[in-house]
Amino acid sequence: MTKNIKVNAAILIIGNEILSGRTQDTNTSTLATWLNSIGVRVEEVRVVPDDEKKIIDSLNLFRSNFDYVFTSGGIGPTHDDITAQSVSKAFGIKYEIHKEAYKILETYYKPGEFNEGRQKMVWMPEQANLILNPTSGAPGFSVENVFCLPGVPSILKSMLGGLTNTIVGGEPILSLTISLRTVESEIADSLSKVQENNQDVEIGSYPFFQAGKLGVSIVIRSEDQSKIDICNSQILKFVNEKKIEVVDR
Amino acid sequence: MTKNIKVNAAILIIGNEILSGRTQDTNTSTLATWLNSIGVRVEEVRVVPDDEKKIIDSLNLFRSNFDYVFTSGGIGPTHDDITAQSVSKAFGIKYEIHKEAYKILETYYKPGEFNEGRQKMVWMPEQANLILNPTSGAPGFSVENVFCLPGVPSILKSMLGGLTNTIVGGEPILSLTISLRTVESEIADSLSKVQENNQDVEIGSYPFFQAGKLGVSIVIRSEDQSKIDICNSQILKFVNEKKIEVVDR
Repeated sequence: MTKNIKVNAAILIIGNEILSGRTQDTNTSTLATWLNSIGVRVEEVRVVPDDEKKIIDSLNLFRSNFDYVFTSGGIGPTHDDITAQSVSKAFGIKYEIHKEAYKILETYYKPGEFNEGRQKMVWMPEQANLILNPTSGAPGFSVENVFCLPGVPSILKSMLGGLTNTIVGGEPILSLTISLRTVESEIADSLSKVQENNQDVEIGSYPFFQAGKLGVSIVIRSEDQSKIDICNSQILKFVNEKKIEVVDR
Repeated sequence: MTKNIKVNAAILIIGNEILSGRTQDTNTSTLATWLNSIGVRVEEVRVVPDDEKKIIDSLNLFRSNFDYVFTSGGIGPTHDDITAQSVSKAFGIKYEIHKEAYKILETYYKPGEFNEGRQKMVWMPEQANLILNPTSGAPGFSVENVFCLPGVPSILKSMLGGLTNTIVGGEPILSLTISLRTVESEIADSLSKVQENNQDVEIGSYPFFQAGKLGVSIVIRSEDQSKIDICNSQILKFVNEKKIEVVDR
């Protein structure tokens, strides 16, 4: 197949603990970095509470507007884990025991330990595809373009490797960062001109503080390395003229 | 005024750098923790790119559905900073030089340093209220219930103190955490029963790994301390019966 296409995704983070500020979400950054590396651009992220209607509404919007949807959180054994039943309702399909998941957990736990709480984790949308979990047994699942992963960051991370061949990305998104010892307002006009001259390249400007000094990182992103190179030389030209120091970060 | 009301908020994080995974967002957690402490529940977070239409659509939805809206990012001097003009368009009001902001920055910078790039930061929606910035001069602003803050975490943090008297919260949301040396599936059924018996209290269950050991933190949240106490004793009752160790975290 041709890979000369743009592939996008949205992420739905499910969980009151993120909205209360109690837990710092890191799954967005993990998923976004991984997706970018396989040529999928994340175009929107939402964080919603453990609320069935809000989960279903977001899922239905996302799954029709984006190529891929990833959810994080809400697939454990407790009462506040309602992702699987919400996905079932969003697709209008049965919520039932997944036989393959049942077998996996029956084997994973010692005899007698596969109790009612644990059995909740094998209830999934009908005919869901499993996403294997090398860390803690209980699998995630996917239905069409919706991929449901757990909220615990280390477990989520461990499950991405198994998905790499399932997600078909477009051209990998390449990026180049130029870090400068300057402030944004010194380069804003010149950088605007570079962006105007290269409208299909994404140029971002991000101030940083490092070792007590101010700086700005300019990030150039495109699927086309030659376009990045053109922007790079246009930026280095004005940087040079303004006698701004380029720094390593 | 009576404070016996629920007050909610939504957060809009604006910036390609969060969606690309390059930058780990921490402003959600900062804002959510602060808002909770003054009695405002965060009910939704969205991360959108530096895209005018997406910013405007999210702003218009949020400002009619939530008591308060906070934005983070996109108020600097570079071409990718489009929050102020997007807010102006969302409200259908003029985007113009804010005289007070102009005076602040004219005083802040040395003579001759208040250049064109910096002057971009004083363009705001007409009659915006300023949010003072004790860290780096350039103010944020608010229009009606929408409060626009910068993306740099340390600057955003430094500006919250000045907002505390502007944001009117409801009853403070109290919380109690019980950390247990167990796994979720051991307590799922008992915890479900406590939730069923106390439906207006928010009970969350969060697995953790600490010093190589597994545990679960149960978080009880409510505006009413007596309701938290009731849940606490019901939880400790089954914890005790199951001989589960309570641990400090």
